[in-house]
Amino acid sequence: MASNNSKCWDESQLRNYDLNLEQIPRLHCDDPAVDELIAANKPVVITGSKLVESARKWDLDYLEQNMGSGDYTVFISQNHKFKYYDEKKIAKTSGFVPPTNKLDMKLPDFMKRLRKWKRGDDRMYLQQGLNNTVGPEIVKDFLKFDWDFCSGKQNKHHWGPLTSNLLLIGMEGNVTPCHYDEQQNLFAQVHGHKRCILFAPDQFECLYPHPVFHPHDRQSMVDFDEPDYNTFPKFRQVRGCETVLGPGEILYIPIYWWHHIESLMRGGHTITVNFWYKGGANTSVTYPLKDHQKVAIMRNIEKMLVEVLQDPKEVSPLLRAIVLGRYTE
Amino acid sequence: MASNNSKCWDESQLRNYDLNLEQIPRLHCDDPAVDELIAANKPVVITGSKLVESARKWDLDYLEQNMGSGDYTVFISQNHKFKYYDEKKIAKTSGFVPPTNKLDMKLPDFMKRLRKWKRGDDRMYLQQGLNNTVGPEIVKDFLKFDWDFCSGKQNKHHWGPLTSNLLLIGMEGNVTPCHYDEQQNLFAQVHGHKRCILFAPDQFECLYPHPVFHPHDRQSMVDFDEPDYNTFPKFRQVRGCETVLGPGEILYIPIYWWHHIESLMRGGHTITVNFWYKGGANTSVTYPLKDHQKVAIMRNIEKMLVEVLQDPKEVSPLLRAIVLGRYTE
Ligand SMILES: [Zn+2]
Ligand SMILES: [Zn+2]
Repeated sequence: MASNNSKCWDESQLRNYDLNLEQIPRLHCDDPAVDELIAANKPVVITGSKLVESARKWDLDYLEQNMGSGDYTVFISQNHKFKYYDEKKIAKTSGFVPPTNKLDMKLPDFMKRLRKWKRGDDRMYLQQGLNNTVGPEIVKDFLKFDWDFCSGKQNKHHWGPLTSNLLLIGMEGNVTPCHYDEQQNLFAQVHGHKRCILFAPDQFECLYPHPVFHPHDRQSMVDFDEPDYNTFPKFRQVRGCETVLGPGEILYIPIYWWHHIESLMRGGHTITVNFWYKGGANTSVTYPLKDHQKVAIMRNIEKMLVEVLQDPKEVSPLLRAIVLGRYTE
Repeated sequence: MASNNSKCWDESQLRNYDLNLEQIPRLHCDDPAVDELIAANKPVVITGSKLVESARKWDLDYLEQNMGSGDYTVFISQNHKFKYYDEKKIAKTSGFVPPTNKLDMKLPDFMKRLRKWKRGDDRMYLQQGLNNTVGPEIVKDFLKFDWDFCSGKQNKHHWGPLTSNLLLIGMEGNVTPCHYDEQQNLFAQVHGHKRCILFAPDQFECLYPHPVFHPHDRQSMVDFDEPDYNTFPKFRQVRGCETVLGPGEILYIPIYWWHHIESLMRGGHTITVNFWYKGGANTSVTYPLKDHQKVAIMRNIEKMLVEVLQDPKEVSPLLRAIVLGRYTE
């Protein structure tokens, strides 16, 4: 079960899943073991850093006053889940119905709707890349992030360039269902608490990602609320780790690691800033390959097949023909 | 059931398989429909050609007198099956036991052993590429093949270069188990009768080829004598076609088509000459891809995986991870 040093939440605020979970190590940013874990591509909660110290004053009033009058991307869901989908892949997938709506909202409208929200209303999740349209005060806070800290991690661990900082403002109880990203992520908690459940890349078989060309690419097909064990039998065996991340804490989510993220129930809204970095260039390849490298290979096979067959519907029969009766046992 | 114009054999000479087979069309070489079938990559028995007319005098005595004193490749089997294996792939496959022995024999030794053979003895199958070591009389006969005929097919159907002519001398009852080749094949019968059972490339799922890196690559894992329907359930549904090929007749075996070949039981020895041509260059690719193109893609995926994983044993778990629960229905 989750534990925390300064515990201002209790376990009743965590959603209830039938999962086998260990605790993610929690280490002070000065502890050299932090870099050992990062070097090994293992998750770690980093405490005591000042990475997003300048954003600790970002409460809803401050953001409303300083975020400017631009448009912000807000997802709307009729339930607590916000399962990401790639709009570019919808056209090729017949019968796909987006599980959330994507809206452009002005920040005052978002705040108004947030404040008057009551159970049963649609939920919202603001997910906006931080750029220079966010208003001068926010830009100032952004520039005061401890860039030395994150650039230090980037250099030490040979990550590629920073690609984006995503600002996440979520409602209590919101869930980002289990998926993996193809980037290194420093996930910095600014406000409120988020429970993060992570699974290593070798849990691929237990988590059943959608096909690569599906809008839900990189998302697990398993609904954690009601796992269909007949369709996804290996989900029973999935092994993961978890933590509850509080303000000022950073979770390192290694590239290709699965993560399910939930804003604690009855915990108020949450604010997070993501630091996404490209993976490092594959220097020398060593065998046997690492699990995340195998995931990359599997992705490439699926992509290659869509490319060469020119029709996603032909991928499945071809893959079955390769495997069934030939590579099953 | 097999039928033939000049029938000098009866159905009791055919091995008994539980298979759903149609007849391969039999057409005179002047019939324009021959080229329509070849153009469509469909098998056809071509009658009336003079392709190997100059070899019709190749009986055992003639061959013994004229084949020279070189070494000939002879496979030895303790049963009627001669399942081909790629020697280069044995080292990578732990526990592989070659089902036949490969010997270099002088032709007189082969003939002596052939003549005194009795039931229960090891069986032999001579399979030798025709080259200039075979003796001057045989070379002369070889040069008198109707090269205009086969080069005509090669040009008309945009095949690649002729890669080899294989001379096959088999004992009655010998079986070449079901496999496919990656070349176009004009299979010219010189002496005796061979029953040929063919399956289109779209029967891949029903025939369960060994993995690409296995010594039995391109060979079906199914033993036609005793099909294991639990392991290979779709073999029940396999659909094929057959013919009994007599002297002077040519079977066009299209590239990637599966073929099982048996020298008729109690039919005496058989002699065949193979004309193998590379497939044509892929001019314009049209979608949906043809079945043999899909087989080529599947082969490439398996090869690529061995290459990138550097270990054949890792291919199976990775392929299962891609497919099971994700692409199974
Ligand atoms: Zn993510
Ligand atoms: Zn063959």
